[in-house]
Amino acid sequence: MSLSLSRSAIEEVVRTVVTGRLSPAGCASCAKCPRLTSSPLVVNASARHMHLSPADLEVLFGPGHQLTPMRPLYQDGHFAAEESVTLIGPRSRLISNLRILGPCRGHSQIELAFTDAVSLGIEDVPIRLSGDIAGTPGAVVMGPRGVLQLKEGVIRAAIHVHMNTADAEFYGVAHRDLMKLRVGGAAGVMFTNVYVRVDPAYKLEVHLDTDEANACGLRFTRDVQLFK
Amino acid sequence: MSLSLSRSAIEEVVRTVVTGRLSPAGCASCAKCPRLTSSPLVVNASARHMHLSPADLEVLFGPGHQLTPMRPLYQDGHFAAEESVTLIGPRSRLISNLRILGPCRGHSQIELAFTDAVSLGIEDVPIRLSGDIAGTPGAVVMGPRGVLQLKEGVIRAAIHVHMNTADAEFYGVAHRDLMKLRVGGAAGVMFTNVYVRVDPAYKLEVHLDTDEANACGLRFTRDVQLFK
Repeated sequence: MSLSLSRSAIEEVVRTVVTGRLSPAGCASCAKCPRLTSSPLVVNASARHMHLSPADLEVLFGPGHQLTPMRPLYQDGHFAAEESVTLIGPRSRLISNLRILGPCRGHSQIELAFTDAVSLGIEDVPIRLSGDIAGTPGAVVMGPRGVLQLKEGVIRAAIHVHMNTADAEFYGVAHRDLMKLRVGGAAGVMFTNVYVRVDPAYKLEVHLDTDEANACGLRFTRDVQLFK
Repeated sequence: MSLSLSRSAIEEVVRTVVTGRLSPAGCASCAKCPRLTSSPLVVNASARHMHLSPADLEVLFGPGHQLTPMRPLYQDGHFAAEESVTLIGPRSRLISNLRILGPCRGHSQIELAFTDAVSLGIEDVPIRLSGDIAGTPGAVVMGPRGVLQLKEGVIRAAIHVHMNTADAEFYGVAHRDLMKLRVGGAAGVMFTNVYVRVDPAYKLEVHLDTDEANACGLRFTRDVQLFK
């Protein structure tokens, strides 16, 4: 395991400096001086998890139940909750302790890596952007106070990068564009279908699932590069 | 899931034809006519498995035991055996039914995907070429007739491509060179560290592990391309 800077990472820093993309010290954003600062690139692995609608939360955990934050996630306001559920697949196979992420959303959704989906018996899990769940497989979800028959909502999340509008301007991309993520190191991989998700509240962060993170040895390298 | 030919696959076929790399029908290999035929590119996922030395086979399965072929592998003479073992990691975690691949080799070796290694408690599993096991983690292996204390030999196999000398000539590469494998489809990935293994007996075949195959959606695409 090497955490030293690779040649390409050093080159990227030099390139960033010589093209003047780093803000001069003390220069606050202003209308005259366009912000071309690169945010730090964070790449995180999302383990399998579930998002819940308020109504489904009550089915599983009882009337009036509220999620209890256990650990904050990198995106502000998002958290891994204390709550977890049991997922039951089409052939009565189980995934226990499936973590709930908060806050609640409009629709319930289960995000699995392909390895998880196969172990559950859902071999045709579709690759989708979060929220795009029409026609996806369902599952039975068991909580401490009730059972939910989810008609759809099981997906493998497409690789995506969260960014705010300044980041989108910096990279020259728009919401739903595709970018590439290069991960260096001994298990070098280039992910070529990275979807851009732009929201003013987002911090720059790529989400891989656990299969993708394991395939590229993400935890052993800091040599990551995002580009068009 | 689409199994139709992608644009890039069609382009590759056209390129192959127009550059005269396909042998004219009826033209056998000869000294005058250099063989520049491309072998069909096969990409397979290797699930976790173990290779055994003859001595270790006897420790686990009893004196004089011979492996029983269950299923032939793509490389001639190689097979998945009926025999399997239980692998016990450093924190008494288990992997049951670890398949033995035959025939026997000079040294025993266990090949795990990173997901397998983590589930076993070996989080520092090194990425190695087959046979390069010096200083790698060991494990305890349990067979029906005995227990083996393996001092080293647990690896994550580096992505590699088996090819014969004509294939190596076709691609312009040599043994231990690095190539790239592009996998298309919804989970598009480019693997940038694919080691070349040349042997006259090899058939052209890339080996990914299950993490890598799952990350790139290998079973849902035929759009694969190998290049320098």
